[in-house]
Amino acid sequence: MPIYEAPVRDMQFLIHEVLQTQNYSNLPGFADATPDVIDAFLEESAKFHQQVVQPLNVVGDKEGCTRHDDGSVTTPAGFKDAYQQYCENGFGSIAMDPTYDGQGLPLFLAYSIGEMTSSANHAFAMYPGLSGGAWRAIHAAASEEQKQTYLPKMTSGEWTGTMNLTEPQCGTDLGLIRSKAVPQGDGTYKISGQKIWISAGEHDMSDNIIHLVLARIEGAPEGIKGISLFIVPKFILDENGEPGERNSLECGGLEEKMGIHGNATCVMNYDEATGYLVGDEHKGMRAMFVMMNEARLGVGMQGYAASEVAYQNAAAFAKDRLQSRSITGTKNPESPADPILVHPDVRRMLLDTKAFTEAGRALVFWTSLQADLEHKSPDEETREKAGDYMGLLTPIIKGYLTHKGYQGTNDSLQMFGGSGFCEEWGMSQFVRDCRISTIYEGTNGIQALDLVGRKLMANGGRAWQSYFAELDQLVEDNAGNEELAPFVDGLKTVKAELVEATQWMGANAMANFDNAGAGSFDYLCLFGLTTLSHMWLLMAKAALENKDSSDPYYANKLATGRYFLARILPESTSHLAKLKTGADTLMALEADAF
Amino acid sequence: MPIYEAPVRDMQFLIHEVLQTQNYSNLPGFADATPDVIDAFLEESAKFHQQVVQPLNVVGDKEGCTRHDDGSVTTPAGFKDAYQQYCENGFGSIAMDPTYDGQGLPLFLAYSIGEMTSSANHAFAMYPGLSGGAWRAIHAAASEEQKQTYLPKMTSGEWTGTMNLTEPQCGTDLGLIRSKAVPQGDGTYKISGQKIWISAGEHDMSDNIIHLVLARIEGAPEGIKGISLFIVPKFILDENGEPGERNSLECGGLEEKMGIHGNATCVMNYDEATGYLVGDEHKGMRAMFVMMNEARLGVGMQGYAASEVAYQNAAAFAKDRLQSRSITGTKNPESPADPILVHPDVRRMLLDTKAFTEAGRALVFWTSLQADLEHKSPDEETREKAGDYMGLLTPIIKGYLTHKGYQGTNDSLQMFGGSGFCEEWGMSQFVRDCRISTIYEGTNGIQALDLVGRKLMANGGRAWQSYFAELDQLVEDNAGNEELAPFVDGLKTVKAELVEATQWMGANAMANFDNAGAGSFDYLCLFGLTTLSHMWLLMAKAALENKDSSDPYYANKLATGRYFLARILPESTSHLAKLKTGADTLMALEADAF
Repeated sequence: MPIYEAPVRDMQFLIHEVLQTQNYSNLPGFADATPDVIDAFLEESAKFHQQVVQPLNVVGDKEGCTRHDDGSVTTPAGFKDAYQQYCENGFGSIAMDPTYDGQGLPLFLAYSIGEMTSSANHAFAMYPGLSGGAWRAIHAAASEEQKQTYLPKMTSGEWTGTMNLTEPQCGTDLGLIRSKAVPQGDGTYKISGQKIWISAGEHDMSDNIIHLVLARIEGAPEGIKGISLFIVPKFILDENGEPGERNSLECGGLEEKMGIHGNATCVMNYDEATGYLVGDEHKGMRAMFVMMNEARLGVGMQGYAASEVAYQNAAAFAKDRLQSRSITGTKNPESPADPILVHPDVRRMLLDTKAFTEAGRALVFWTSLQADLEHKSPDEETREKAGDYMGLLTPIIKGYLTHKGYQGTNDSLQMFGGSGFCEEWGMSQFVRDCRISTIYEGTNGIQALDLVGRKLMANGGRAWQSYFAELDQLVEDNAGNEELAPFVDGLKTVKAELVEATQWMGANAMANFDNAGAGSFDYLCLFGLTTLSHMWLLMAKAALENKDSSDPYYANKLATGRYFLARILPESTSHLAKLKTGADTLMALEADAF
Repeated sequence: MPIYEAPVRDMQFLIHEVLQTQNYSNLPGFADATPDVIDAFLEESAKFHQQVVQPLNVVGDKEGCTRHDDGSVTTPAGFKDAYQQYCENGFGSIAMDPTYDGQGLPLFLAYSIGEMTSSANHAFAMYPGLSGGAWRAIHAAASEEQKQTYLPKMTSGEWTGTMNLTEPQCGTDLGLIRSKAVPQGDGTYKISGQKIWISAGEHDMSDNIIHLVLARIEGAPEGIKGISLFIVPKFILDENGEPGERNSLECGGLEEKMGIHGNATCVMNYDEATGYLVGDEHKGMRAMFVMMNEARLGVGMQGYAASEVAYQNAAAFAKDRLQSRSITGTKNPESPADPILVHPDVRRMLLDTKAFTEAGRALVFWTSLQADLEHKSPDEETREKAGDYMGLLTPIIKGYLTHKGYQGTNDSLQMFGGSGFCEEWGMSQFVRDCRISTIYEGTNGIQALDLVGRKLMANGGRAWQSYFAELDQLVEDNAGNEELAPFVDGLKTVKAELVEATQWMGANAMANFDNAGAGSFDYLCLFGLTTLSHMWLLMAKAALENKDSSDPYYANKLATGRYFLARILPESTSHLAKLKTGADTLMALEADAF
């Protein structure tokens, strides 16, 4: 049976010592998040996720969801009850707007809890996860009346929400959407069409499901500029705002998937279902982007959340499994063999995963602080800069953290040898579940294009210039610190490579846009390595403050960071070299040659 | 439904134009393998695998194997019949010794057919695959009487064979084996113990199953030097050499696995089963190594066989799926969107996989020719050199080709977006099946250790010195060829890095063995890249001979090779940089810190 222990200590280090969030008490909600409150939240959440959510992970995988003939869907045994407890504990509403009954606490706290849910049970985490995305889209784009009508019940978790974008002929390219909306003259619309891959599209965990559906109003312009967003509830609300008449929509089937079996991935059929326009006609994509941006941060989190739990199991196995002797001589003479942790190549896989995971967590926490600054800071300049960072880092977090997270999860399985391939040990499920994270919310290739095609260009490159300047400042500020020097040098080196790559892009992309596309994924990886180096510098600095502590946590943190510098950072050179070869070798082959 | 088209053209190019196997007609069996015979074999095999074996791939995954209460095991519907046809076509006995009814043809032909079986249906391929391994172990180590008794029926496929190594407490470390053998005084032994992960341990496809079992004779020395090898048939042969009395062994259960569901992975319980010693007492490992070395070549083949079929499906999808427009302008104005093949990042994933797969195939074919030279050449020097190459390259082929093959299979899934994650498209199965190849027959970490700890050192480094000299010669011989220059330069550069890495290992491993272990996997990857560069030079040279051909095959081959040089080869630099950081950062953390 796989284990999971929530990394409370690591979260506390990031929150209290690296980000020092107590210094942001001028932001709404932050003053309430005192260190004591934060610690209590983390501990309570750890207990809940370890005791209630994690044990359901294997159950969800084995049992999956069941669709009945009437279109209803049953989630795996225990999910409904666990979800109720999750809601009662308020884990879903931590950072939601208090106007609609949310707790208004900082986002980093929501991400801390979210990571635990995702590590403990990826499939389960998607129910509140998707619901939170729908909540944010409504919060960002709907009328005050709609917000008052739908949000409080979604805040409490009594109702859940979904996002309906994909159709069989369109995933990435939403301009091809065919679902249609016919105005009824009374302010409502009849929505018809088929949506696929709708996570939590139908289930037995909530009293109502608020579907957000992208559709085309009759006569709308073609393409992306003719898409509108609708609220289409499973049960139409009665005059008291309670679920009443059943709307004419249903789950037409469940997908058989590689993983996340505990999540109901639905084909949703809308047959003249009653819907309510959100925001302006034809402006549906705008609200969706709000939702998608934060969802992408959440998916990036899933990447390292998966490698965290997979790593924990691999580390436990490596300490426990006795096999062969250390090449430097017997370490464990009283046993028939040494634990496999003595073997350097086993440590390589463990440390690759550990050094990535800890920096990935730091990056998501750091960026979630930027998200709060963007929305809550009283200072316009701060808000702008934070917003720039958010926009710039979102594709990197989604793309790079899931890329590396999947690698780490696979390496963790690898360490188990044949046991890793047997379902009984649980490692296969981690890999199968994690596989989706490089795909959904925009494949990693799309993230790379978003980065080079949109985020780099926005506002004349203001975002990356500002971020690069921040890194330069950090290097300068810490130049004299001898103990920190390897971390400073590492960041300086990789940042110089990133600058070179950025200049290459600038010089070559205009001549041939394919050069941008061809280098996009390596650019994203190089940027990802830079951000992780940034995080390792921040973490090393905080750890050095306590270098004389009797708590080995700090020395271990520094050792892990040194591993990152020695063994992960050198990947940057290959990414830069590949990127600079341009598009020619990619585009040389005719379609028939593939 | 996934597709598969056997890459006959590519195999022909390698056999006739790159390896020019017609020049080896002095070797036994090679004269019979005229180009016509080879082509006919490939065509017939392609038809059979496309029409019979590949359609059972999904069936095998969904249905799996079933163990009944009496311990018998049923394979998925259609497997038994397909296996019978496979045997009737003689696909399993191509390179087997004619003394025991084999066809005695060259190994590259056996690997060509083997690749097709593996691409078409990995799980199915394991039945004849494991049987062939058992055949080779018996052929290498058993008495003439034993060979006459068992081999002909295994050659025909009427009987199959297995290899029983692993026990719950020992996988890699076979010195920990506990299964015991008690001599009965009549030349037979009673074998007792439990073996796990026995592929094809029990099934309904053959009339008898010849188990090869590693066990410890009572009173044997401890550790690896007390292990003996036994033939333990499912049915003990009667006086006519036909299956008679049921031996006291049975399948105690089937493993639930991540993939290869169509293969019966058995827990085998031996309860005083009658067994016959193979070779000398306590020398069982020697015969097992013979079997394992060739099995490792076969597993390396599975790595690129998986990426071959995954790639084919991804390429077809990329040409078919319409989504978004090319960033350089609409390519397909008559459709609502362009095929995703226009996007450079999609081509990156396709070409990464294609350029690897084609070179991987070349490497296995080239090495299988070395295996034939080792065993069949009349010239002692040639035999020695070929044997050295075989030994040196085996861990690289197993470790690097499965490492890259898994990556390519994953990238192929990635290109499908959400469809890749849905079982209906078949890409998930390719990834799940392929996952085992980096694990079994010695994990890739073990391959890396075998390379740096054993193969580099053997005979004072004779093997690598000889291989390096061959590469230098190749570079020198082709120095004046302008069109070939990028390929020559690529090989020269990566070989220089490999030399640097080898020297670093030499200089640092003796001071601290952990330096060898710490760099072993990066060393294996760097060596792997060198061998693929070697193959690309050979292929480019052969393709340039036909550069004016109207057949686009040659130009495409060269373009794919140029992609390899630009976009895959630069990975070497990172491997070298990581390797040279040594063991310190890996060994710094105490066990408690993991």
